[in-house]
Amino acid sequence: MTNLDTYEVGFDIPAKPGMDEAEIQTPALVLDLDALERNIKKMGDYAKAHGMRHRVHGKMHKSVDVAKLQESLGGAVGVCCQKVSEAEVFARGGIKDILVSNQVRDPAKIDRLARLPKFGSRTIVCVDDIENVAELSAAAVKHGTEIEVFIEIDCGAGRCGVTTTPEVVAIAKAVEAAENLKFSGIQAYQGAMQHLDSYEDRKDKLDVAIAMVQDAVDGLKAEGITCELVSGGGTGSYYFESNSGVYNELQCGSYAFMDADYGRILDKDGKRIDQGEWENAFFILTSVMSHAKADKAIVDAGLKAQSVDSGLPVIFGRDDVEYIKCSDEHGVVMDPNGVLKVNDKLRLVPGHCDPTANVHDWYVGVRNSKVETVWPVSARGRAY
Amino acid sequence: MTNLDTYEVGFDIPAKPGMDEAEIQTPALVLDLDALERNIKKMGDYAKAHGMRHRVHGKMHKSVDVAKLQESLGGAVGVCCQKVSEAEVFARGGIKDILVSNQVRDPAKIDRLARLPKFGSRTIVCVDDIENVAELSAAAVKHGTEIEVFIEIDCGAGRCGVTTTPEVVAIAKAVEAAENLKFSGIQAYQGAMQHLDSYEDRKDKLDVAIAMVQDAVDGLKAEGITCELVSGGGTGSYYFESNSGVYNELQCGSYAFMDADYGRILDKDGKRIDQGEWENAFFILTSVMSHAKADKAIVDAGLKAQSVDSGLPVIFGRDDVEYIKCSDEHGVVMDPNGVLKVNDKLRLVPGHCDPTANVHDWYVGVRNSKVETVWPVSARGRAY
Repeated sequence: MTNLDTYEVGFDIPAKPGMDEAEIQTPALVLDLDALERNIKKMGDYAKAHGMRHRVHGKMHKSVDVAKLQESLGGAVGVCCQKVSEAEVFARGGIKDILVSNQVRDPAKIDRLARLPKFGSRTIVCVDDIENVAELSAAAVKHGTEIEVFIEIDCGAGRCGVTTTPEVVAIAKAVEAAENLKFSGIQAYQGAMQHLDSYEDRKDKLDVAIAMVQDAVDGLKAEGITCELVSGGGTGSYYFESNSGVYNELQCGSYAFMDADYGRILDKDGKRIDQGEWENAFFILTSVMSHAKADKAIVDAGLKAQSVDSGLPVIFGRDDVEYIKCSDEHGVVMDPNGVLKVNDKLRLVPGHCDPTANVHDWYVGVRNSKVETVWPVSARGRAY
Repeated sequence: MTNLDTYEVGFDIPAKPGMDEAEIQTPALVLDLDALERNIKKMGDYAKAHGMRHRVHGKMHKSVDVAKLQESLGGAVGVCCQKVSEAEVFARGGIKDILVSNQVRDPAKIDRLARLPKFGSRTIVCVDDIENVAELSAAAVKHGTEIEVFIEIDCGAGRCGVTTTPEVVAIAKAVEAAENLKFSGIQAYQGAMQHLDSYEDRKDKLDVAIAMVQDAVDGLKAEGITCELVSGGGTGSYYFESNSGVYNELQCGSYAFMDADYGRILDKDGKRIDQGEWENAFFILTSVMSHAKADKAIVDAGLKAQSVDSGLPVIFGRDDVEYIKCSDEHGVVMDPNGVLKVNDKLRLVPGHCDPTANVHDWYVGVRNSKVETVWPVSARGRAY
């Protein structure tokens, strides 16, 4: 538990437990705890019913507190994250199974990675280059630890990862032969398809990914190498991986919070996924701070309170006002009927939850209009 | 001075003084100290030669250390910033003249604003609504302090601010009549024109702003009210305000760092302003962390290391490679000739400096390829 006693509301922190929601200093990240808990439980139940491990994506929320809620309420087995410094935050926070779902190549970072098991955490990392194997092995030997390795397959994201089964097999053999490393499975997350609106379009992309992964698993088996884990799957695809017969671990993140860009994608019945499948649990609370023009309210959440890479935020539960423009510290809200007043509060659903969470230091957890918890965004800024 | 002794490189902080530039843990914000100092001195010399006060925009860098360099090297009179929590950071850091160039309406924020003079800082705030006057006065009386007021004119940005001289005069009179408030001038920053490429287009917009401000100053004078300060001007316009005969205070920010979006605008000779007028002093240092495809390098600076609201970053000093895509933690760099290797470092010029600085906790100041200073982004995340 973070000790909030020495923090000043309005300087260090946007709120303290016990305050009314209306007293939160804005702009602030607000979590609807009821919605968050329902989302977490729902995905946990789904994973359990389908025999899938759920390794929640901690890079989305960067919060030890949220990760622990995902373990206790959603049966999560641990986290994945993207950076060694993030993994250190989760390990120090008591998460016991951590995958750095990314390549680690810098010598100082490899050295830090090799020390992670000393926190008591299972430590897994992705590899897409056979030259990385010796580097990881040397660091693990130096620190007397074991690093587990997933071989990353680029199954459509077009970033890191190998693309052929012979490469997978060659790296797996090198890992098996290397001291203090263990080959533990395959990383195959199709990131590029998660945000395609159409369910069928997403399915087509995932079918390709599943075929690539199946081929790799078969190729390894032919060499006598077993894949303990096949890991991947996001909020826009987890049902495909869960029913694939080859994946056994999910890596969903955004389902817990939801955002405007994910919310727009459609389920198999053509319904937006934020209209039944998942609830919006993550908001930027903002205040009107100027209304000098009759039809325009200026709110206090701009580019320093969110990332607009996936579009502008949507005002939650309102169709009479619209957020139309974003500058550093201001949002312009069209208010054609002049219904808003100075100091009115609005809940914004940000375009993209991950980089928006990364701008803030605190989550304010709200239930029944009261601040119940204030959690640090524990790994905020830990990108190096 | 921030004591860095207890910080771990790679966990808390990207570098420590004395390290080689190549050892900086990436992604990290790097300041070229020579270029930064030249930019600061140049703008300071310009302001002095034109008889202008320069109140540097602290919301750009959010750094007490940079603000102090702007005072010592560039003759800055103090800072402006956008939030009370930012102003508190600058006041606690020893900046003695602070303008919150924004409206403050939330009761708790007004209360904090009224306490700012107790840090020994002249405290000025913008007003665009006559109802705000009594709120500010009551808080200043409560704390036994004086708050100075600028009346904000919306001279084209389309956000906060009044648009007519009678409104300016009415608010000024209310301020003059209110206890513990002082009317000190006009805020008229034309934000919307700063990024227009053409010098003539920018001049046309500023001519409108200058005419509005002149009318307001005349209207106040007719009522016997003197404007001590007329404040505005940015990196794309400061020469217009300086030669206007009505402004006497500049508020430039981005000139010190430069960014890719500002760099593209043209001076009066049609030359990009980052090709002579200002130098790029602000970079995201990034590393290649995967090169599994022959023509694509994947770097470690994505959306968590920058804001892409004003476009993707540009790779500094290289025309053989191009940053073409940005996801949460990855950048895709086209490398058609395969010249990049894993762990190679690149300097990225971000699209927009202000919200990019706000994602990071630290500036790493570099000179002659050595880390000379590590400064906190002191007011990072202080948006509330």
